[in-house]
Amino acid sequence: MDGPAYPRDRTGVLLVDPYNDFISDGGKVQPRAKAVMDAVGTVAHMRAVVDAARAAGIRVFYVPHHRSRPGDFTTWKYPTPYQQGAARVQVFAEGEWGGEWHPDFQPRDGDIVASHHWSSGFAGTDLDVQLRQHGIDRIVLVGLLANTCIEATGRYGMELGYHVTLVRDATAAYSEEAMRCAHDINGPTYAHAIVDTATLLAAFPRP
Amino acid sequence: MDGPAYPRDRTGVLLVDPYNDFISDGGKVQPRAKAVMDAVGTVAHMRAVVDAARAAGIRVFYVPHHRSRPGDFTTWKYPTPYQQGAARVQVFAEGEWGGEWHPDFQPRDGDIVASHHWSSGFAGTDLDVQLRQHGIDRIVLVGLLANTCIEATGRYGMELGYHVTLVRDATAAYSEEAMRCAHDINGPTYAHAIVDTATLLAAFPRP
Amino acid sequence: MDGPAYPRDRTGVLLVDPYNDFISDGGKVQPRAKAVMDAVGTVAHMRAVVDAARAAGIRVFYVPHHRSRPGDFTTWKYPTPYQQGAARVQVFAEGEWGGEWHPDFQPRDGDIVASHHWSSGFAGTDLDVQLRQHGIDRIVLVGLLANTCIEATGRYGMELGYHVTLVRDATAAYSEEAMRCAHDINGPTYAHAIVDTATLLAAFPRP
Amino acid sequence: MDGPAYPRDRTGVLLVDPYNDFISDGGKVQPRAKAVMDAVGTVAHMRAVVDAARAAGIRVFYVPHHRSRPGDFTTWKYPTPYQQGAARVQVFAEGEWGGEWHPDFQPRDGDIVASHHWSSGFAGTDLDVQLRQHGIDRIVLVGLLANTCIEATGRYGMELGYHVTLVRDATAAYSEEAMRCAHDINGPTYAHAIVDTATLLAAFPRP
Repeated sequence: MDGPAYPRDRTGVLLVDPYNDFISDGGKVQPRAKAVMDAVGTVAHMRAVVDAARAAGIRVFYVPHHRSRPGDFTTWKYPTPYQQGAARVQVFAEGEWGGEWHPDFQPRDGDIVASHHWSSGFAGTDLDVQLRQHGIDRIVLVGLLANTCIEATGRYGMELGYHVTLVRDATAAYSEEAMRCAHDINGPTYAHAIVDTATLLAAFPRP
Repeated sequence: MDGPAYPRDRTGVLLVDPYNDFISDGGKVQPRAKAVMDAVGTVAHMRAVVDAARAAGIRVFYVPHHRSRPGDFTTWKYPTPYQQGAARVQVFAEGEWGGEWHPDFQPRDGDIVASHHWSSGFAGTDLDVQLRQHGIDRIVLVGLLANTCIEATGRYGMELGYHVTLVRDATAAYSEEAMRCAHDINGPTYAHAIVDTATLLAAFPRP
Repeated sequence: MDGPAYPRDRTGVLLVDPYNDFISDGGKVQPRAKAVMDAVGTVAHMRAVVDAARAAGIRVFYVPHHRSRPGDFTTWKYPTPYQQGAARVQVFAEGEWGGEWHPDFQPRDGDIVASHHWSSGFAGTDLDVQLRQHGIDRIVLVGLLANTCIEATGRYGMELGYHVTLVRDATAAYSEEAMRCAHDINGPTYAHAIVDTATLLAAFPRP
Repeated sequence: MDGPAYPRDRTGVLLVDPYNDFISDGGKVQPRAKAVMDAVGTVAHMRAVVDAARAAGIRVFYVPHHRSRPGDFTTWKYPTPYQQGAARVQVFAEGEWGGEWHPDFQPRDGDIVASHHWSSGFAGTDLDVQLRQHGIDRIVLVGLLANTCIEATGRYGMELGYHVTLVRDATAAYSEEAMRCAHDINGPTYAHAIVDTATLLAAFPRP
């Protein structure tokens, strides 16, 4: 592939789960991610990527996890232990502050908000058709967690034929080791590029 | 869920990529996996799971990676660096010994051989419809590699609604750290059970 | 397959698009479907199927078409002429009466409302995972239109491995000929059963 | 969309099931399609589309139905009556002449042969990822049958975001009425263009 790495008409920034519960002080699971977020500057870099994308004319796609409701999974055959844990604390609860977007990440005109996912942003959602109908075949993943929703979305996106970019310092996880699994062990087996925010922004088209 | 954990009429063993190149002496990438395989006894445990499944009346599904052919990816837009590396060495080459099943893992009457995959056993294959048409909603994953095809298949399977079991000592990876990512960091976020072979076989139905 | 044709624990009734715009007097496209609806008794039969399902302990799944919003498709590459027509009249408009459920078809506790579709109820939605997580592998399709959303959902469902039942008099279309295409020409090539409401209800389990 | 309707770098011709059993004298089900094939000139038009595509630099994708094998479906839960009928006559039998390509439709260098399907060319196959990896987002469907595999592939393709073109005289069905359902009743609800071969070729890029 010659030419610009992130052409504005075929690149999409996928903003995964920028909920208060994840990235705001007082969020239900934010304390578990805080050490990594502080170390890499997650929220500031997510903001930088989104701002640069808007400035460059690159479209932003919100990729939201299911918001918890009481009774989730009670009639399901096979919820995972992890899902059951999330249900117990009602993470990203519907109708509560924790399930609202962080104040710095509010959908704007022209953004696309995909239908909610349970793990991968692609499984059982309209994300793929929304990306395609907007001509996007290169996706840049930012948000949380590096080794759960981001990785599930990145792996699935690669399998669908997308060019996948991970951004090391615009994501977070519950431990340094989980970050290392995401970016040094697993990422290289499916992603096309694993970069930091500064490198990414240098490759974005000039506004 | 009460009752037996792995009922014979709804459980399938997924045997992922038991190619000579992976698990036979002289295989192209076997040297990279050998240290882990020797440490955990991968091949013997794969054999034990498959034998026990057959004895218990649990169906076995072969889940084969694409076999390399010269020219793979030359016209693709976005092959990954990892895929390009595999193409350079022609891993699991079609028509060669390395792309044949290991002698201990040969499909038998009643086994199902799914169509070939590129990463997840489910993406772009008939694995899901074959499982469903046989009434399977619980899958047990054995084979290689723990953090690539096994993990991609397990994550995708969970997203499709399957009950997913990983078997720590019936798989392998290119490093101990990759095994730890697969079973201690990522597995618990999507799998329903992470067991060793002895525990699994104790939960299989009596023949 | 022996045993009851529609066991309560593995059968789901899919109620497709019971919007006012489709089936209520005054609905935007109801006049186009009215002749067929009057001829076969669509709404009364939809109600009979849903009531009988609830009485028999068979779960009901709402399968809703996307509700029109101003600006739909303006940034899409390839909306179909049919979609553009629907957008012009804003059929099932979000926030309007026409995009509300018909008064006789209101979700109750225990019903599942799938995420919205654009054509097939399965494409880009959580319908499949919701069905699976509830153990459903037999689907009974009622609602509108016989040759568009119902047929797209039935074909896709069969491809996923579901047992698919069409109900001739609990659906409608814009012409008698379209009904004939749906039930006499195409249905027999993909459906497992094509019945009328009376036959279906006789095969439901006793409450 | 301005510009040429079928740009060579983003258009693919999908050649669906050009088996001897369908379109050659002596084929198992050819007698059922013969009246329509003779009336519209199916085979000659399929050849014209494929030849023109090759001349214009448009890539050809073979989209093959599963080839029958003895025992197909014997262990499946829900084969359709239609699939069971095909199994009884072993249509497109593996290893037999009827399951070979018609002599005029042989894959050439550069063609892509997708993995086999059961109904839609997309369901459980690598067709989508092959199209995407070749940059294709406009598909032209030729082959058989107009109201089964062609329609299933076209509907599914539209749902995935493709621009879909049907070609009235480069397909066939088992009756005139089935052709009318495919092109006059259902086609207009999901396809982007329904043309004849002459119109299509006039819109292809100059070689």
